[in-house]
Amino acid sequence: MPRHTAYRPPKIPEMTIRRLSVYTRCLLQLEEDGVKTVSSQELAERFNLNSAQVRKDLAYFGEFGVRGIGYYVSGLKAELQKILGLDREWAVVLVGFGNLGSALFHYKGFARQGFRIAVVVDDDPTKVGREIDRVPIIASRDIAREVKTRGIQIAVVAVPAESAQAVTDQLVAAGIRAVLNFAPTRIRVPRDVRLKNVDLSIELETLSFYLAKSGR
Amino acid sequence: MPRHTAYRPPKIPEMTIRRLSVYTRCLLQLEEDGVKTVSSQELAERFNLNSAQVRKDLAYFGEFGVRGIGYYVSGLKAELQKILGLDREWAVVLVGFGNLGSALFHYKGFARQGFRIAVVVDDDPTKVGREIDRVPIIASRDIAREVKTRGIQIAVVAVPAESAQAVTDQLVAAGIRAVLNFAPTRIRVPRDVRLKNVDLSIELETLSFYLAKSGR
Repeated sequence: MPRHTAYRPPKIPEMTIRRLSVYTRCLLQLEEDGVKTVSSQELAERFNLNSAQVRKDLAYFGEFGVRGIGYYVSGLKAELQKILGLDREWAVVLVGFGNLGSALFHYKGFARQGFRIAVVVDDDPTKVGREIDRVPIIASRDIAREVKTRGIQIAVVAVPAESAQAVTDQLVAAGIRAVLNFAPTRIRVPRDVRLKNVDLSIELETLSFYLAKSGR
Repeated sequence: MPRHTAYRPPKIPEMTIRRLSVYTRCLLQLEEDGVKTVSSQELAERFNLNSAQVRKDLAYFGEFGVRGIGYYVSGLKAELQKILGLDREWAVVLVGFGNLGSALFHYKGFARQGFRIAVVVDDDPTKVGREIDRVPIIASRDIAREVKTRGIQIAVVAVPAESAQAVTDQLVAAGIRAVLNFAPTRIRVPRDVRLKNVDLSIELETLSFYLAKSGR
């Protein structure tokens, strides 16, 4: 197993990043339960993970384990949060305030991890100019101004498929550096902008796989 | 690389299943573009995948490649859909018809992959007894009856955190075999029921990782 003593940026699989998020949640849970130290085996058993995978994933970022002790729960949690950029707050622009946008706005998980929706974009004239929980709803023509003024780097796109590319182009022009896309369509961004498409049906497919496998 | 000539059920990583869903989408795209055959390298390059990973993932399920040709796009797509249980329709019960439930109901990706929402559950008296797009909204006390009558095996839970466990217990008692949970809380199911928790903030965390890494 390769061990890095200092942080170097090798090519890190996206699935490793995803698992770091999962480990962070497990460590939070352990912390809440008053657990001070944990081995990779204990972590794996309790949360149904693969202990070799845990060690391999962590090895990309440094040497966190202590011989004979395992990991310090709070210390490792803090390290992972820092790696994931969760030791600070990120202002987010949410585009689209229909059913999905509204659900995402009220989704408690975002704020808990430091993602604060700072402004909402929706061109519906009955919505523009209103505030929800003191967050303003603006028209898309004001995206550039608000994104720059507020120093927003992350956008969540929850508009219908047919509007997704146009609004993404506006976001990119305004200086947005990362886009989380919920619109059920393929959108394009320049190479220096990170794009993540959320495809909710993939989650259902992992379930149908297991049901199909066990006989119909 | 191990090659299986017939399907055997080894322990398949969940990430492999997830990637099969991604490959299926890529193959659909190629099919729409009129592409007949594709090599793992071409597939990897075009969709930003890892060709060794593609081969390894597929090898769990059989030998799909043809020497000197690669994969037949339509054939491989059909095989993967069958493996994922997407060659049939699954009736789904959606529990919770608030903002998120409503967004999920109208989410086109589910139906496209064969997941048909057959019944919606919500105890709001202004909703019970209504129909949306000819799908009935029932009260939770009628879950058992409807799940059994309609032969539903999959539930999507989109209720507030505090109701999630109680409604899941009702679903399990009614015979549901797989639960996709959007409620931002940990729920428990018996060992023979598949549970998948959707944590939308994980998607944002892969983005903040890259932003944090590239300097703030």
